[in-house]
Amino acid sequence: MKTADLELATTRAAGVNGSTRMKALVYHGPGKRAWEERPRPTIQDTGDAVVRITTSTICGTDLHILKGDLPSVTEGRILGHEGIGIIEQVGTGVSKFHVGDKVIISCITACLKCDFCRKSMYSHCRNGGWILGNTLDGTQAEYVRIPHADGSLHSFPKGGDEEALVMLSDIFPTGFECGVLNGQVKPGDTVAIVGAGPIGLAVLLTAQFYSPAAIFMIDLDDKRLAVAKQFGATTLINSSDGRAANRVMELTEGAGVDVAIEAVGIPATFDICQGIVAPGGRIANVGVHGKPVELHMEKLWDRNISLTTRLVDTITTPMLLKIVASGKLQPSKLVTHRFAINDIMKAYDTFGNAAAESALKVILKNDGN
Amino acid sequence: MKTADLELATTRAAGVNGSTRMKALVYHGPGKRAWEERPRPTIQDTGDAVVRITTSTICGTDLHILKGDLPSVTEGRILGHEGIGIIEQVGTGVSKFHVGDKVIISCITACLKCDFCRKSMYSHCRNGGWILGNTLDGTQAEYVRIPHADGSLHSFPKGGDEEALVMLSDIFPTGFECGVLNGQVKPGDTVAIVGAGPIGLAVLLTAQFYSPAAIFMIDLDDKRLAVAKQFGATTLINSSDGRAANRVMELTEGAGVDVAIEAVGIPATFDICQGIVAPGGRIANVGVHGKPVELHMEKLWDRNISLTTRLVDTITTPMLLKIVASGKLQPSKLVTHRFAINDIMKAYDTFGNAAAESALKVILKNDGN
Amino acid sequence: MKTADLELATTRAAGVNGSTRMKALVYHGPGKRAWEERPRPTIQDTGDAVVRITTSTICGTDLHILKGDLPSVTEGRILGHEGIGIIEQVGTGVSKFHVGDKVIISCITACLKCDFCRKSMYSHCRNGGWILGNTLDGTQAEYVRIPHADGSLHSFPKGGDEEALVMLSDIFPTGFECGVLNGQVKPGDTVAIVGAGPIGLAVLLTAQFYSPAAIFMIDLDDKRLAVAKQFGATTLINSSDGRAANRVMELTEGAGVDVAIEAVGIPATFDICQGIVAPGGRIANVGVHGKPVELHMEKLWDRNISLTTRLVDTITTPMLLKIVASGKLQPSKLVTHRFAINDIMKAYDTFGNAAAESALKVILKNDGN
Amino acid sequence: MKTADLELATTRAAGVNGSTRMKALVYHGPGKRAWEERPRPTIQDTGDAVVRITTSTICGTDLHILKGDLPSVTEGRILGHEGIGIIEQVGTGVSKFHVGDKVIISCITACLKCDFCRKSMYSHCRNGGWILGNTLDGTQAEYVRIPHADGSLHSFPKGGDEEALVMLSDIFPTGFECGVLNGQVKPGDTVAIVGAGPIGLAVLLTAQFYSPAAIFMIDLDDKRLAVAKQFGATTLINSSDGRAANRVMELTEGAGVDVAIEAVGIPATFDICQGIVAPGGRIANVGVHGKPVELHMEKLWDRNISLTTRLVDTITTPMLLKIVASGKLQPSKLVTHRFAINDIMKAYDTFGNAAAESALKVILKNDGN
Repeated sequence: MKTADLELATTRAAGVNGSTRMKALVYHGPGKRAWEERPRPTIQDTGDAVVRITTSTICGTDLHILKGDLPSVTEGRILGHEGIGIIEQVGTGVSKFHVGDKVIISCITACLKCDFCRKSMYSHCRNGGWILGNTLDGTQAEYVRIPHADGSLHSFPKGGDEEALVMLSDIFPTGFECGVLNGQVKPGDTVAIVGAGPIGLAVLLTAQFYSPAAIFMIDLDDKRLAVAKQFGATTLINSSDGRAANRVMELTEGAGVDVAIEAVGIPATFDICQGIVAPGGRIANVGVHGKPVELHMEKLWDRNISLTTRLVDTITTPMLLKIVASGKLQPSKLVTHRFAINDIMKAYDTFGNAAAESALKVILKNDGN
Repeated sequence: MKTADLELATTRAAGVNGSTRMKALVYHGPGKRAWEERPRPTIQDTGDAVVRITTSTICGTDLHILKGDLPSVTEGRILGHEGIGIIEQVGTGVSKFHVGDKVIISCITACLKCDFCRKSMYSHCRNGGWILGNTLDGTQAEYVRIPHADGSLHSFPKGGDEEALVMLSDIFPTGFECGVLNGQVKPGDTVAIVGAGPIGLAVLLTAQFYSPAAIFMIDLDDKRLAVAKQFGATTLINSSDGRAANRVMELTEGAGVDVAIEAVGIPATFDICQGIVAPGGRIANVGVHGKPVELHMEKLWDRNISLTTRLVDTITTPMLLKIVASGKLQPSKLVTHRFAINDIMKAYDTFGNAAAESALKVILKNDGN
Repeated sequence: MKTADLELATTRAAGVNGSTRMKALVYHGPGKRAWEERPRPTIQDTGDAVVRITTSTICGTDLHILKGDLPSVTEGRILGHEGIGIIEQVGTGVSKFHVGDKVIISCITACLKCDFCRKSMYSHCRNGGWILGNTLDGTQAEYVRIPHADGSLHSFPKGGDEEALVMLSDIFPTGFECGVLNGQVKPGDTVAIVGAGPIGLAVLLTAQFYSPAAIFMIDLDDKRLAVAKQFGATTLINSSDGRAANRVMELTEGAGVDVAIEAVGIPATFDICQGIVAPGGRIANVGVHGKPVELHMEKLWDRNISLTTRLVDTITTPMLLKIVASGKLQPSKLVTHRFAINDIMKAYDTFGNAAAESALKVILKNDGN
Repeated sequence: MKTADLELATTRAAGVNGSTRMKALVYHGPGKRAWEERPRPTIQDTGDAVVRITTSTICGTDLHILKGDLPSVTEGRILGHEGIGIIEQVGTGVSKFHVGDKVIISCITACLKCDFCRKSMYSHCRNGGWILGNTLDGTQAEYVRIPHADGSLHSFPKGGDEEALVMLSDIFPTGFECGVLNGQVKPGDTVAIVGAGPIGLAVLLTAQFYSPAAIFMIDLDDKRLAVAKQFGATTLINSSDGRAANRVMELTEGAGVDVAIEAVGIPATFDICQGIVAPGGRIANVGVHGKPVELHMEKLWDRNISLTTRLVDTITTPMLLKIVASGKLQPSKLVTHRFAINDIMKAYDTFGNAAAESALKVILKNDGN
C-alpha cells in the first residue's frame, strides 16, 4: 500500500539534526563513482524504515557493478547492500522495530507476504529480493530507506560488535546458505572449496559448523590460501598449474569429494567442481556467473550427483546470530581494513586492488553525525 | 570370495534336463546381433544364482549398445538386464532364495556390503552396479548367472503378472528414482516431462503417486503424446516447432514448472528443461547423455534450482511391488508387443523401429524349456 | 502497531448498507449459546481486514468450547474459526487484499513477522495463532475482523465452490499437516487412521495424495466406516470389541503399520496407535487431548518410532488449493447438511448429534445482506 | 544358510596355538557372574567370523542384565557386545574380511539382506540386531563368533587407538544416532541432555558436531557435571532439587529447548524432557526404559513436537571413524579405568560402583594369548 503520507511515519526527532541532505557513494556509469551529496531518504510506504548507517562495507558485487556488469543498476544509484545502523523513522505498518533501534540490514529485502517469501525464498520476493544498491538506493551512504523493514532488518544484539555483525548482512548468510546448506555438508565429509576470496572464506568458516573431516581450499593466490589455513582448511591447493582437479583426485585416492563448492563464478572454477565430485556428491554453486558453462552430462548422468544454485535468502541470519553469540563463529576474522565512511573512495581503491592489498573485507565507519 | 567349487552350490536336479547348452542373444560388434547357442552359465561364487529366464524384454540401452555407443560392452556379450525367471542353482552363500523360487531380476547388481551399497547407492556398488548385459552376460537368454543374488533378486509375488513385473527390473525404478524422487514431485506441483518414450511414460505413471496438479508431456511424436494423455498427462506439447519452452512459460504465466524431468538424453531436450524450471525448482535428469550440454549458469546462478543425475539404484523395487499389489500402478500398460524368446531377432527389429511400430515395451516369453 | 485511526482503513462504501449491527453466535458459558445481535467489527490495526461472511461451518472444537473444555474462551465470545467471505474494509498496512475481494479465512492467524512465523510455524505465531473464536470474536457471524489479514486470508479462486473451499479454513490443512505430513505417508505404506469423524476422513482423503498401499480405518461407528470405504479406505475395523490393535497386527502378519494416525484425542485411541506402529514407523497425533496418556516406553524405546504432535500451521493451504483446482481432491465430500446462517442454532443441534444425524460437516450459508 | 561344514572356513593356523578352550565372563542368573573356562567358538555359518578379542569394555546394559532385567539373556550366556580383535577364522561367504584383520565389532549384527537392513535399520535386522551378549555369546571373552561378519565388523584403521575405537562398538553410535541425529541438532540450537553418564557424555561430545549454541547438562551428580563441563557443556544443572525443568525454563526465558535428549531411562528424567521442549522442538530418547511414562498429551498435542525412540543401528560407524581420524572427536576421553581382561571381575566391581569410583568407561585389555 503506497502512500506519501508522512503522518504515517514515526520520526525520531524534529528535523533529525536539521539537515535533509546526506553524503552517499553514487554510481555514475561504468568505472565512475563519487562520494557526493544527496537528499536524505524518507518514508514512502507504511512498511518502510529509514536507517542512519553506522557501519557498512563493500562487496565484490559492488565491483562488478562498477565494471558495468549489472544492467539493472543505473546511473545515479547509491551503491551498497550491507550495513548496520540506527532507525531514524518507521512507517506505521512496521511492528517489530522502533525509532532508535540498532539494526542489521539484510542484503535481501523480504515482504514476507508473497508466495516466494511464504516458502522462505526471500531471494525471489516479488516485492523485494536483492534491490538495495541495485534497483533502489543502498547502504553506502549516511542514511538508507529500507522497504518491508519487518522482513528485512534484524535487531542488533546487546553487546554485539558492529564490525563482526555487518558481515551478517550478506557474506555469511551467502556462504552458509548457498555453499554449506545447499552442499549438505555433513560430519566426516570431504569438502572442496574453489575460491579463497571473502565469500570462499565465509564458506570455509561456516562449513565447520558441521564438522567435515577434510576441507580442501583451492585458489590461485598463496596468500589467500595461507589465510584459509588459519581459518581451518586442512589442505591447500594452488590451482595455477591447472592441475587442481587431478590433485584432489590423487588426495582422495580417486574417490573425489562429497561436496564441491564453487565460490568464484567462472567456467574454469566450475569445471574443477564437476571434475572432482564423487558419485553421490553435491556441487553447490555460490559464484556469480556471467556466461554459460559446459556441463559434462556424458560423464555425470550416471553419477548420482546434485548441482544447486542459489541467491542468498538470508533466512539463516537468526541462526547465525545465535552462533556468533555462542562464540563459535568470529565473523570479524574477515576484516582486514577499516576506513571512515568519508574515505570510502579510498576504501574502494583498496578493495578493488584486493590481491596486492591483501584485502578481504573493508569496514566503513560512520562515527560522526 | 571367489570359488570354482561347485560343491558350494545347490542345484535343482541332476543335469537340469540334461543339456549344458542354451540359446542367447549375442552382441557381435556394432550393428551385429545373433540368437545363437552358448554354454549355460554355472555358479562361480558362493553368492551366485543361476536363473532360467521365463520373461524378458528389450531396453533402449540395448539399442545404444548395438550402435556401438557403449565401449564397456565387448563382442560376444549376451545382452539384456531385465527379466523374470526360476532359480535353477544357488551358491552356498545365498540365504534369501532357493532353487525353484520365481524371481524378478534387478538390472542393478548389489553386493550390499561395499560403502556405496551401505549408503543405498547400489548403482555404484563396487562389486556390481549395472553389469548384466554390459560387462557380464545378461538376461536375453534361456539362462543367466546373477552374482550377489541376495542383493540383486526380488521374490516374485504370488499371483503376480510376469509381463507387468518384468517392468520392475529397470524401467519403473529408473523413472521413479531418477525422475520422480530426485525431482521431489509434491502434491500440487506442476511437472514437465520431456520425452514420451517408455522411460518418460514410466516417469509419468510414477509421478502420479504424489498427486501433482499438472503434468506437461513434451515430445516430437503425437502418437506417443496421445498415449501420455491416456496415462494421465494433463497437457500435451509437441516440441517439433522448437517452441516447447515458450509454450510451457505461456501455460504457467511465466512462472515455469516446479519439476522438469529430462527423459531423452540430448542437449536439445536438456535445454528445454533449463528454460522452464521455476525459481526453487528441480531439474531431474533421467536420459543417458553422450555429450556435454551448455548449462546457462549466467541465468541460473541466482534461481535456487537443483539439477540431479542418477543411475537407478533399484532401492524402490520393494515399494513398487507394494504399489503394484495395491492396484495403484499397472506396469503392463507399457507393453505393446509380445514375442516368443526364439523370435527375439524379430522383436529387436520391432523395438528398433519403435515410432513406426508404435512400440513401447516388447515382451519376450520363454514358455518352453 | 495498534491504532484506532479509522483514517487508516479503506472502506467499501459509506456505512456499508447503513447498519453498524450484525447477528452472531455467542458463547455464554458452558452449554449456552445464542444467535444474537452484536456490533459489527471495525478496523483496529493497520493490518486488519473486516470480512462479511458468506459461508461458514461448525468444528468439533466448537462443541468442546460449548462443553466448557477450553478456559481460554470466555463468555460473550463469538465462536467460529472457519469461513469464506467478502472483504468490506482493510487497514492501510494490508497489501495483498482489497475491499471486495472474496477470501478464505484461515483458522490460524499469522503475523508472518515473528520467529515462529519465520519458521513456518504459524500455529505458534506470537501475535496470532488460533485466536478466532477463541480469544477473539470469530466467524459464525455476519462479519468478522481478521488481524494480520495478509498472513491469514487466501484469495478465493475464480470459479471456486464455497462449500468445498470453506473446508480449507481448518479441517483439510489439519488432517493433511498433522496427520499425513507429520506421519510422512509414502507410496506403498500401510496406514491406520483411528477415528472416522470429519477430521479422520480429511486425513483419509489427503493421505491418498501419497498413494499408500493400504489404509485401515478404525472407528466405533459402522456408518462412519461405510463412508470411509467410499472415501478410499481399504480395510474397515470396528473397534467396539476392544480388539482393533490385535486385528491390525493380524492383518499385517505381525508387522504393524508404517503410520498410525490418532484422530480422536482420548487415551484409548492413542493406545491403539502405540500398539500397532511398526518398528521404524510414525505415530501422528491429530486429536485434541484433555488428559495424559500412558506411553509404553518400556516397549517402544528400542523400536525406532517417532511420535508427533501439531496444531495446524495452515502452511499447506496454497498447495491444497492447487490440488482442489486440479480435481484430485473434492473437499465438499464432507458436507452432509446445509443451513442458512440464521438457522445456526438448529445447525448446532444437528452437528452436536452427529452420530444420529449422520452428520459430518454442516454448511452455514449467509445469502442475505 | 546354516552349515556345520568347517571346510567352509579359512582358519588362521593349525590349532590356533593348540587350545580349544578360552576364558569368558559368564552370566549365571541375577547377581551372578564368573570368569570361567568355556569352549572356543567356531565357524557355524558361511557368513561367520571368529575374532580373538584384544580390547573390550563393559556397558551399562551389562549391569541391567546382571540385575536380571533382561529376560532374553539366559543363564550361561557370555556377556559383552563391544570389542576390538583379530580375525582368527572366517566363513567362505565372508568377502570383506580375512584372517589376521584387526576389526571393530559392532554391538549390532546386520545380515544386510533383510527388509530392515535394506532400510538401514540394522537394529531390527531379522537375522541379527542386538544379539551379542544377549541371545548369543558375547565379547567379554578371549574369543567371540560374529555372525554376518561382513555387516557386523569394521576394519580397524591403521594407527588407530584401541581404547578410543572400542568406544565405537556401541556408545558413540548410540549417543550420536539415538540422541543427536534423532534430535536433529542444528547449528545455533539450544540442547538439553538429561543424564551425564557415559551415554549422556557421548551425546554431549557428538552433539558438538553440529555446533549448537548452548548445551545444558542435567544430572544428580556434580562430579559427572564437572566432567560434562570439560567436555563442552555450556550450562550445568544439578537436578537433585527437583527443579531442573524450572531452571531450564528460566534460563531460556520461558522458551524451552530445541532438543531435549533423555539419556537415563526413567519416568523422572523423561518428565524433565517433556517439560522443557519448546514448540517445534524434539525429544530424543536414548535411555532404556523399564516401565511406562505418563505423556502429557493434554499439554503437548498442540506444541508441534516430535518424540523419537531408537535402538542404535550403527550405520554411522563409518562416519564416526572419519571424524575420529580427523581429530574432531577423541572417544578415549570417556575412559577412566583400565584392567587386564583376567581382572574383569574387579572391573565389574568398579564399573558397578561408578559414582563412588568416578568411573565412566573401563577398558578390558587382552594382551596375552
